Amino acid sequence: MTSEMRNLKVFASYRGTNYHGYQRQANAVTVQEVLEKAVSKVLNQPAGIIGCSRTDTGVHAKQFCFNVKTESSIRTVGFCRGVNGELPDDISILSCEDVPLDFHARYDCKGKEYLYRIHCSESKDPFSTDLAYHYRRKFNIEPVKKAASYLTGTHDFASFCADCSGVSTTVRTIYSLEIENNGDSVIILVKGDGFLYNMIRIIAGTLIDVSEGRINPDDMPSILDAKNRLRAGRTAVAHGLYLNRVFY
Amino acid sequence: MTSEMRNLKVFASYRGTNYHGYQRQANAVTVQEVLEKAVSKVLNQPAGIIGCSRTDTGVHAKQFCFNVKTESSIRTVGFCRGVNGELPDDISILSCEDVPLDFHARYDCKGKEYLYRIHCSESKDPFSTDLAYHYRRKFNIEPVKKAASYLTGTHDFASFCADCSGVSTTVRTIYSLEIENNGDSVIILVKGDGFLYNMIRIIAGTLIDVSEGRINPDDMPSILDAKNRLRAGRTAVAHGLYLNRVFY
Repeated sequence: MTSEMRNLKVFASYRGTNYHGYQRQANAVTVQEVLEKAVSKVLNQPAGIIGCSRTDTGVHAKQFCFNVKTESSIRTVGFCRGVNGELPDDISILSCEDVPLDFHARYDCKGKEYLYRIHCSESKDPFSTDLAYHYRRKFNIEPVKKAASYLTGTHDFASFCADCSGVSTTVRTIYSLEIENNGDSVIILVKGDGFLYNMIRIIAGTLIDVSEGRINPDDMPSILDAKNRLRAGRTAVAHGLYLNRVFY
Repeated sequence: MTSEMRNLKVFASYRGTNYHGYQRQANAVTVQEVLEKAVSKVLNQPAGIIGCSRTDTGVHAKQFCFNVKTESSIRTVGFCRGVNGELPDDISILSCEDVPLDFHARYDCKGKEYLYRIHCSESKDPFSTDLAYHYRRKFNIEPVKKAASYLTGTHDFASFCADCSGVSTTVRTIYSLEIENNGDSVIILVKGDGFLYNMIRIIAGTLIDVSEGRINPDDMPSILDAKNRLRAGRTAVAHGLYLNRVFY
């Protein structure tokens, strides 16, 4: 029996609450570890998966992509059902397809969309305790929209990076940055070619500081120019953040 | 010091997953018990609360109303903050106001709106595991809308009641029954003057049977006429059900 190498491109979704982030590490349960265990069981071989991104502890993914190479002849539908059968309730496989062997979930990613969710109300929402930042004040949408407008486009985002030591450049392009306000719910939706460490959480925290009047929206250009993390606002809590979509 | 009796009308919200329903019972944790404990602590007296409704194990409430009588002079804002401080993450106080002493959360309720949430997809949604019924097939919206149209208005709903022994009449009025379909999500929204035991879950289950072709939408009048629980469809699972609004 000859077996041919295949490359599976898999979309998944997870609720990050119970995990120490995506990436495998010693002495802590991560999404990667749980996915690899389930995938290995279904493929009947030790399988290493390549994820599109790392996410921090408590961060969620509505759409996450990974690829895995295998000589298994399992059908893609059977792979989805089989892996879902091995996974806990908070991780789900959405789809699976065969792709060329040179596809790489991280290097081939053309862009990502992140979503930051805020529940604005004096009272907490029992349905989103670990799924949205509970903000007890009024959200002032107009200055926040103005501040956000300065961030779209190509900029050096060094002021919005928690640790830039591992990257060759801090220049990134934000394609769109939308603020949606629907009753108690505020959604910050950011689409770009790539993001620095904690960049979305620092953007969300800075916009919250703008809402509170701690930062003037027209100061955004000088904050970008400073290339200094101390000039931007707070880092918003992890559990409001979602990797929403990944583009190839 | 003279203290005057007051009656507080309180709106709350809860995620029912961790509770054996609303109503207090021995040997099981219920929403009523947890609320009464928190309210008693803040009012500094043993407090019995009167709820607008009972909900089953696993059923949620986006808006629930109760009233409580007290001689405490606490301000209503302080009551909300104080009780929220004593409550776990899955129960929240939304508002509190003084009302006349004869107000009764259950007897004065003029109508209720329930919501039944279905996640329609082969893959589970990690964000709604305990918050929506996971239905792995396609939802056929048109026959379901037709079947639903037969249920609005005033009818004898004995066929949609799990246990009618405690009620004097099984006639109820449904003001509206809407089906909303948005991507993977189906919402059944039912507004009426009152509901029989398990009535919404049997309506939801029957509509799912219609979607699957097990029940013909035009059979709904004869199912109502039969006044026989065995003629209607399945009882949909509890964790898709929400008490959405209560009207006074």
